[in-house]
Amino acid sequence: MRPPQPPAVLPRGFRFAATACGLKKTGALDLGMLVSDEPASAAAVFTTNLVQAAPVVLCRKHLRKAKGRLRAVVVNSGNANCSVGPAGMTAARATALRAAAELGITPQEVFVCSTGVIGVPLPAERILAAMPRLARAGRGSTRSFLEFAHAILTTDTRPKWAAATCRVGGKTVRIAGCTKGAGMIHPRMATMLAFLATDAAIAPGLLQRTLADVSKRTFNTITVDGDSSTNDTVIILANGASGTRKIARDSAAHRGFAAALEKVCHSLALQIVADGEGAQRVIEIEVRGAGTEAAARRIAETIATSPLVKTAFAGGDPNWGRILAAAGRAGVKFDPDETYIEMAKIPVYRRGRALPFDENAAHRRLLADTVPIVVDLKEGYAKARVWTCDFTAEYVRINASYRT
Amino acid sequence: MRPPQPPAVLPRGFRFAATACGLKKTGALDLGMLVSDEPASAAAVFTTNLVQAAPVVLCRKHLRKAKGRLRAVVVNSGNANCSVGPAGMTAARATALRAAAELGITPQEVFVCSTGVIGVPLPAERILAAMPRLARAGRGSTRSFLEFAHAILTTDTRPKWAAATCRVGGKTVRIAGCTKGAGMIHPRMATMLAFLATDAAIAPGLLQRTLADVSKRTFNTITVDGDSSTNDTVIILANGASGTRKIARDSAAHRGFAAALEKVCHSLALQIVADGEGAQRVIEIEVRGAGTEAAARRIAETIATSPLVKTAFAGGDPNWGRILAAAGRAGVKFDPDETYIEMAKIPVYRRGRALPFDENAAHRRLLADTVPIVVDLKEGYAKARVWTCDFTAEYVRINASYRT
Repeated sequence: MRPPQPPAVLPRGFRFAATACGLKKTGALDLGMLVSDEPASAAAVFTTNLVQAAPVVLCRKHLRKAKGRLRAVVVNSGNANCSVGPAGMTAARATALRAAAELGITPQEVFVCSTGVIGVPLPAERILAAMPRLARAGRGSTRSFLEFAHAILTTDTRPKWAAATCRVGGKTVRIAGCTKGAGMIHPRMATMLAFLATDAAIAPGLLQRTLADVSKRTFNTITVDGDSSTNDTVIILANGASGTRKIARDSAAHRGFAAALEKVCHSLALQIVADGEGAQRVIEIEVRGAGTEAAARRIAETIATSPLVKTAFAGGDPNWGRILAAAGRAGVKFDPDETYIEMAKIPVYRRGRALPFDENAAHRRLLADTVPIVVDLKEGYAKARVWTCDFTAEYVRINASYRT
Repeated sequence: MRPPQPPAVLPRGFRFAATACGLKKTGALDLGMLVSDEPASAAAVFTTNLVQAAPVVLCRKHLRKAKGRLRAVVVNSGNANCSVGPAGMTAARATALRAAAELGITPQEVFVCSTGVIGVPLPAERILAAMPRLARAGRGSTRSFLEFAHAILTTDTRPKWAAATCRVGGKTVRIAGCTKGAGMIHPRMATMLAFLATDAAIAPGLLQRTLADVSKRTFNTITVDGDSSTNDTVIILANGASGTRKIARDSAAHRGFAAALEKVCHSLALQIVADGEGAQRVIEIEVRGAGTEAAARRIAETIATSPLVKTAFAGGDPNWGRILAAAGRAGVKFDPDETYIEMAKIPVYRRGRALPFDENAAHRRLLADTVPIVVDLKEGYAKARVWTCDFTAEYVRINASYRT
C-alpha cells in the first residue's frame, strides 16, 4: 500500500513546521509544530494504558482548562518522555510554555506530544532551543505539512497522511491528517499519534463525540503486535476558517463531516498497519454471523493477534486451522461445525471440515498486499472487521535490537 | 536447560512402545503406546479451546464410561485429527477398537491422542496396520519409555521427561512422565500433551483433583505464544503396582504424592518453555505485591505474552519500559509510581523512574539460559509466577513454513 498523493489543498488557517533538534542521532526531523491562526475547537482521544507519559497527562489537563479551545500542537519523536519521574512533567510544561511565548498564546492552548523510547530523560533544552526557529518556520504549504508528517516518525519506514473534503451549506470544508506508529499497536484505545486539522466550524463537544466515534471504527480496529503504548494520542483542531456555518449535531452537514473524517482516519489507520514493523501485507479479518458485535469483535481481535496466524501469513500459508483454533480460544461460544472460513475469497472450511482447494493457487493469492479473511459463525447477524499485518522475522530483528 | 537424566527406575506395571507408522514424512517415530498391566485409576485435563479434536472428545467419553479406570494410551504425532468432519471420530474410534483388540481389553479402557497439523484427514489405516507390532513391542524398560517420549514430538527439538518418587506407608511410589509441545502454548488450559504414569494406589476422583490442582500451578503457568491448541491433553494412570496402601485424601501420603507429581509436572512444563519454538532462553516472571493472586497472574501473563517484551529478551535488551507498558495494559489497577522492577536480579525501575545500572553488564546477564524478572506492585501481598520464552526470528521461520 502506497501513501496517497500529498494533499493538494490543506485546511485553511493552519501552519505546519518541522526541524531537527538533535533528539534523533541520525539528524532526521524530530520536532514538529502545528498551529491554527485562530483558536480552534479541539478534541482528543488518549491511550487507555495505566502507565501514561507526562505529555498525555498534560494534554488532558490543557484540553480541560482551555475548555476545548486550543491552537497548537508541539510533538517530538525520538523520546517518549515516559517513566522518567517528575522531570517528565517539568519537560512537557517547559515545552508548552516556550511554544506559547513564541506564538503569543497561552500555555493551555498548546498540546504537547512525545514518541520514542521509554524511560530515558528527555533533553528538553534541545526542544526549547529549537522553538524560536520552529515557530517562525510555520507555513500552510503542502511541503510544510509533509515535513511535519516526517518529524513525528520513529520506526516507521514512511510518512502517513490523508485528506478529504465535505460540503457544508454549499461551501467546501477540508480535513487533513498525518499519523505515526509501527509497533505497540493494538485496538481499544487511541493507538499511536495522529494529528488532524480541519477548517470546519464545529463546537468542541460535538467534535469530541465525532472523533471518539470515528476512532472506534478506524484507529481502534487495527493491531500490529497487541501491545499498546503509553503515549498514544489522536488530536483534532477545527478552526472554522472555511467560513461555513457551524455544523449542527445530526444534521446532513454533520453526517458529511463525520464521513469525511472517517475516510481520513481509515486511510491513516490502514497506512499504520501496512507499515507495521516488518510487515509485508495487510490482513483484513471480518467476522460475521455473530450474535453480537462485541462477540464478533472479540473473535476478530483474537485471530488478529495470534502469533501463529500472523506468522502463517508471513509465509503465505493458507493455514485455516490456525484461524479456527484462534477463534476457538476467544472465549465466545459458537459452533465450529457450522462455521465457514474464506481466505483471499477462497472457501477453505465449511461444516466441520476442509473444502478442497488448490494449495498453490491459494498460496499465490495470500502473497498479495492486502488479504481479506472471512469467518462466518452462522449464528446471528452481527459483524466486526479488524485489520492486522503479518508477523515476520524482520519484526523480531527490529524489536530485538531497538536499544542495545 | 538440558532434559534430566533418563529415569533409572520407572513405575512398576507399565509398558511403553513406539514405532514409525508413516505419518511423519521423515520416517521418525510417530506412534506410541503406554499400557498398564492392570486397570489403573485414570485422570485427565483437556484443552479449553472451543474447537476440540475428535480424540479429545473420545478421551472425555471413555474416561466417563470407564468410570475412571483405564489401561492404555495410544498417541500419534504428525496429524492432529482435528476439523476433518465425521471422519475424525471414525478414525479415533477405530484406533481405540484395534488397540483394545490387540491388548485384550475394552475400547473404553483406551485413551487416544493426536498432535500435529489441523484439518488434514488422518490416514488411520497406517495406525491400524502398525497396531499389532506396537502392542507386542511394549516393555517396562527405560529405553522403551524414551522411545515413547520421542514418538509424541512434533516441532520439539528434543524429548522431555521427568520422574520422581515419594513414600507411602514406608514403601516407594514412582512417578514418571513425558510431554511434547513447542508452539500453541498458553496457560489456563491443559497446554500440550503430557502422559504420566505412577504405581501409586489412589482412587480416580482424588487422582483427578490432584492432577487438576497440580496442572494449574505447572502446565497452566507457561506460555510460548499465547495460542492454545485444539488437542491439549494431560493424562495420568495410577495402577497401584507399588503395592502400597491406597492414598487417602489430605493424608501425609497424599501431600507427599502431590508434591512428587508437582515436581514432575513442573519439570516437564519448564522443559516445554525451554524448547519453545525458536526459544533461546526461559523468562521467569514473578509479579508480587498485588492485591489478589488473579491480579498478579493477569499482569504476569500480559507481560509473558507481549511480543515487544519477548523480542527484547531475544536481543538481551534490558528494556524495562516494555515490561512496565505491558503491565499497564493488563486491565489491573496499580500505581506505576510505586512499582519496582528487577531484571536478572538487577534493580532497574523504582518510584516512577529508571535506576542507574550498567547496560552492558545487564545485557550479558540477560543472555543466560533462565532470566528471572520481578515486578513488585507494592499494593498487597499476593503473587503469581509465569514462565515464557524469548521470541526469535527462528519462531517466525518455523511457523511461516510449517505447511507450504
